[in-house]
Amino acid sequence: MIDTPYLLFLGDAPDMLAAKVAIGIRDWRPEHAVGQIRLEGCGADLGLADLTLAEAKEAGAKTLVIGVANRGGVISAAWKEVLIAALEMGFDLASGLHNLLRDEGDLVAAAQTHGGTLHDVRVPTVGYPIANGKKRTGKRCLAVGTDCSVGKMYTAMAMERDMAERGMKATFRATGQTGILITGHGVPLDAVIADFMAGSVEYLTPNNEDDHWDLIEGQGSLFHVSYSGVTMALIHGGQPDALILCHEPTREHMRGLPEYTQPSLKTLRDTALPLARISNPACEVVGVSVNTQHMSEEDARAYLSQVETDMDLPATDPYRFGSGKLVDALAAM
Amino acid sequence: MIDTPYLLFLGDAPDMLAAKVAIGIRDWRPEHAVGQIRLEGCGADLGLADLTLAEAKEAGAKTLVIGVANRGGVISAAWKEVLIAALEMGFDLASGLHNLLRDEGDLVAAAQTHGGTLHDVRVPTVGYPIANGKKRTGKRCLAVGTDCSVGKMYTAMAMERDMAERGMKATFRATGQTGILITGHGVPLDAVIADFMAGSVEYLTPNNEDDHWDLIEGQGSLFHVSYSGVTMALIHGGQPDALILCHEPTREHMRGLPEYTQPSLKTLRDTALPLARISNPACEVVGVSVNTQHMSEEDARAYLSQVETDMDLPATDPYRFGSGKLVDALAAM
Repeated sequence: MIDTPYLLFLGDAPDMLAAKVAIGIRDWRPEHAVGQIRLEGCGADLGLADLTLAEAKEAGAKTLVIGVANRGGVISAAWKEVLIAALEMGFDLASGLHNLLRDEGDLVAAAQTHGGTLHDVRVPTVGYPIANGKKRTGKRCLAVGTDCSVGKMYTAMAMERDMAERGMKATFRATGQTGILITGHGVPLDAVIADFMAGSVEYLTPNNEDDHWDLIEGQGSLFHVSYSGVTMALIHGGQPDALILCHEPTREHMRGLPEYTQPSLKTLRDTALPLARISNPACEVVGVSVNTQHMSEEDARAYLSQVETDMDLPATDPYRFGSGKLVDALAAM
Repeated sequence: MIDTPYLLFLGDAPDMLAAKVAIGIRDWRPEHAVGQIRLEGCGADLGLADLTLAEAKEAGAKTLVIGVANRGGVISAAWKEVLIAALEMGFDLASGLHNLLRDEGDLVAAAQTHGGTLHDVRVPTVGYPIANGKKRTGKRCLAVGTDCSVGKMYTAMAMERDMAERGMKATFRATGQTGILITGHGVPLDAVIADFMAGSVEYLTPNNEDDHWDLIEGQGSLFHVSYSGVTMALIHGGQPDALILCHEPTREHMRGLPEYTQPSLKTLRDTALPLARISNPACEVVGVSVNTQHMSEEDARAYLSQVETDMDLPATDPYRFGSGKLVDALAAM
């Protein structure tokens, strides 16, 4: 659990592409972001107030979150200056970088001296159980994709917001670094030991009220041979009541695997649903989420309409057209 | 890589059930076992020569392998006495115990002083890559089960022996502690970090001669919700050409999961084969291996005959009736 609210550190990020984590926090948990702090030459701007450490402290910020990727995988001296000053002022630090805060001696020393916590969200800190497969109370929805990086996190985030606005009970459950930094908690599933993957998902999505929905962040794809085991553990550990199929129609091959083509939405449905029904026989596929960012609006609408006909399921691009249809489908269950 | 041959340490094992690892080595790699060493009160006996450490050294043993489970999860003082004496005489130690040799200060000290190696095969020692899914040369066979612990390792071991006797090129590829101790190398797949599972299987089963078969040790089951992610990674990382279905027909529920029943062999086939074809479109299901230990011989023969009719596949219990039919199936590919 990372203390909120945050001050978002953008460092010397060359552009907005490097600031994915910070953008996610701004978009999905604006109430967690008191402002941004940037170094000279920073080419990213979240449109938030530029604050000094002291101003952020005054505004109530508890944790400085590294919201950008670092160049060359090194935490530079320029970054260190700000990070150490933040620890000295009583901030915690949180990071999803590959090179860990805890491996930097000067950060560890400053954290110990000033009582701060270093959150490396890439590393599990919980001893997860082995999954027991017991049916849990409450409802769960999982996004599964034809490929990696097709919008599964975005879909769940958008649905959580829409459900909150409708007064439905819903909680986004983060399973990746970005989601954990956005929400302040979760399971870094890709870093969990194999035997405990499904158990960590059970831990993340415990018993809940009967009308409460966990919106579980999907990972990987059953059709992506590098990460399919992680997806399988999400399906069986999450025991979803509802699956949402996620797709990016313009991709020419599976992400990072030039020899592999994406499956069709029907193949995804016919593969994922029987597997999901092993842990939850009542599971249904309830909708399709399409990432249409590389299509014109006209093409996107035509594509979604065709998907609805072909699949006999509601289909939307939650970013472009809202997630309302998907939330309707959950509400109808 | 663990140096062979071994001296098999049975400690004070109460019975043969506790000596699963040692029995596996004796049965599948008898040439690796120069003898056994037992403490007072040991109720296990492999039928091998009882040797002192000095006699085993003289006979060429390089590694003392802990071939039994320890009582109460503690490496006792009585065990320590022998283990330290072995290190002092220049043996390496190898263990698949949950409590690691490397966590015992006196063993670490003795190993450092005498230049011995402590092999904890439960812990990966390699930085595995992320799977790239590229087609590899050579052929691979994977056993998949309706449940955990249905005879997948035994099946692959038996096939390896039969194939060697026929002059076929075959290598058992261990993916679990017991298999690693038996063969001296492998990947402890259940202890690998999620993102690297499939990559570790690619690493374990590299390019090979066109007529060489890797017999990959199966783990878990696609239908066992605690471990299905591990099985999925084996299927996609292993990119098998041949699947063998493994089953234990008398089990009343999935191992450790009283709420879950086993799938049928047809359901296993129809689930595993399409998933396997994602990474290897040429994959075929080639046979069925049935663990008939709880059936009379007459019942076992009748059951196997029925399976052959129902599945249109060769079926055998490799322990009871040999693995010849399964090897025939590989030879015919």
